[in-house]
Amino acid sequence: MKKNKQVGYLGPEGTFSHEAVLKVVNDDSVIVPYDNIIHIFESLENDEIDEAIVPIENSTEGSVLVTLDALMHFDLNINKELELPIKHNLLVQKGKNLDDIVVICSHQQALAQCRNYLNGINKQVHAMPSTANAARYVTELSTAAVIGNEILSEKYNLEILEHNIQDYDNNVTRFVLISKESQDEITGGDKTSIVISLKGDKPGGLYEILKVFADLGINLTKIESRPSKRGMGKYLFFIDMQGHKNEPNIVKALSKIESEVGLLKILGSYATINVGGN
Amino acid sequence: MKKNKQVGYLGPEGTFSHEAVLKVVNDDSVIVPYDNIIHIFESLENDEIDEAIVPIENSTEGSVLVTLDALMHFDLNINKELELPIKHNLLVQKGKNLDDIVVICSHQQALAQCRNYLNGINKQVHAMPSTANAARYVTELSTAAVIGNEILSEKYNLEILEHNIQDYDNNVTRFVLISKESQDEITGGDKTSIVISLKGDKPGGLYEILKVFADLGINLTKIESRPSKRGMGKYLFFIDMQGHKNEPNIVKALSKIESEVGLLKILGSYATINVGGN
Repeated sequence: MKKNKQVGYLGPEGTFSHEAVLKVVNDDSVIVPYDNIIHIFESLENDEIDEAIVPIENSTEGSVLVTLDALMHFDLNINKELELPIKHNLLVQKGKNLDDIVVICSHQQALAQCRNYLNGINKQVHAMPSTANAARYVTELSTAAVIGNEILSEKYNLEILEHNIQDYDNNVTRFVLISKESQDEITGGDKTSIVISLKGDKPGGLYEILKVFADLGINLTKIESRPSKRGMGKYLFFIDMQGHKNEPNIVKALSKIESEVGLLKILGSYATINVGGN
Repeated sequence: MKKNKQVGYLGPEGTFSHEAVLKVVNDDSVIVPYDNIIHIFESLENDEIDEAIVPIENSTEGSVLVTLDALMHFDLNINKELELPIKHNLLVQKGKNLDDIVVICSHQQALAQCRNYLNGINKQVHAMPSTANAARYVTELSTAAVIGNEILSEKYNLEILEHNIQDYDNNVTRFVLISKESQDEITGGDKTSIVISLKGDKPGGLYEILKVFADLGINLTKIESRPSKRGMGKYLFFIDMQGHKNEPNIVKALSKIESEVGLLKILGSYATINVGGN
């Protein structure tokens, strides 16, 4: 009998990551909550789970830095991506109002996505490991409120004090499905992610790399810099492009830039899972 | 009698920003602590202070996103920069040890710069408005510890439990001095910062922009992407270059790219203040 597939996600239940994992798994998969993103990568590396879904980028706040850094440091592949619309709400114990609240708790990314709202109400802010952790905390403390998913209201018996408090309406989080396996089949609608460092750490050298892609007609969908952590002014660049790593023009581009960069790591080729709005 | 210059910083006393502001002000300046970076920008805009020092980038954790976003949205100029070595310590109430500690508090950037350390000790983590706020909190709660500057130990009567807990040894934070004034004089050792958006939001279009700088022999020291907050895949690029905005090759480059970008904002030209190690 085949073992059910184990799929990790950033738990506990009720987080946006939980919503995302439910959109990608089959009925016979087992989903496994983790308390932080690094532990998810470690479990994949140790074969404790088969695959995992992790948040990688938000349209308001930018990249999920832990995920980018982990993709750089672990040998895992991106096999799918999906984009989930994110709507934030302020939830409190039933019967409480904003005047009762001293501290607002949530995951750091959720807090950042509601920065204008938080500046407007001028309360203390606590970053917690997840929106669900924060919700549990609020069930125990009547002067605390949580920012998160509507689902939290049922799950933790909380009242939604305000809806849609995210700073920008078109707030979307992009998730990626990662595993040890590599998606080698071309679907025709693929994207490929790579990370590079520049020889001599000269940001201007990025020009030579982008030229290779431009000359071969490859469309880049993202260019993101991250400090390489080896000192000020030294960066890694995360680049996403349309096309599969086994398509001829991408094969050509990657072999061409390989000699021009300090480091080239292919993070995977993957198709996009379409999800409806929520 | 001339009014003393008022210089804002991210307070309270004892933060790394406090250390930075002391390195740039004259003896007759008055330094003014603020509780968040947006309030500093607002006060400058309303002429309540003359200039301010704000953190913009850390060699481990990357850009200070609030500062980048505020530089984009307020009409202020960068007039100077300085780089400050950052060493983090774990401080507790006197006589306490790590087993007594339930929660670790600090500013979000400090927590991020000690991520490996925090993953290793597995305690609850609270983000607070500043390292000094967190230290004050620790004086009231014996089960809390703060990550921050050595200075905090004297100021808040705390004990340093561990020294140098930052994940990377060459941890440096870059600060910029901002005001309504513009630094129009060429010193010969200047840098210029700009922010651009790409026409049609095609990241590949960055290639055309970088080509202009490459062709004119302008050395770029930083290329950083930020979401433009108008939806997934739409970015702003923050670009730093060597040279002053009034030097001929930079004048030429900026006028050339102006027609090729969606938006071009010059954030200022500035010299670097040299500070010793700490």
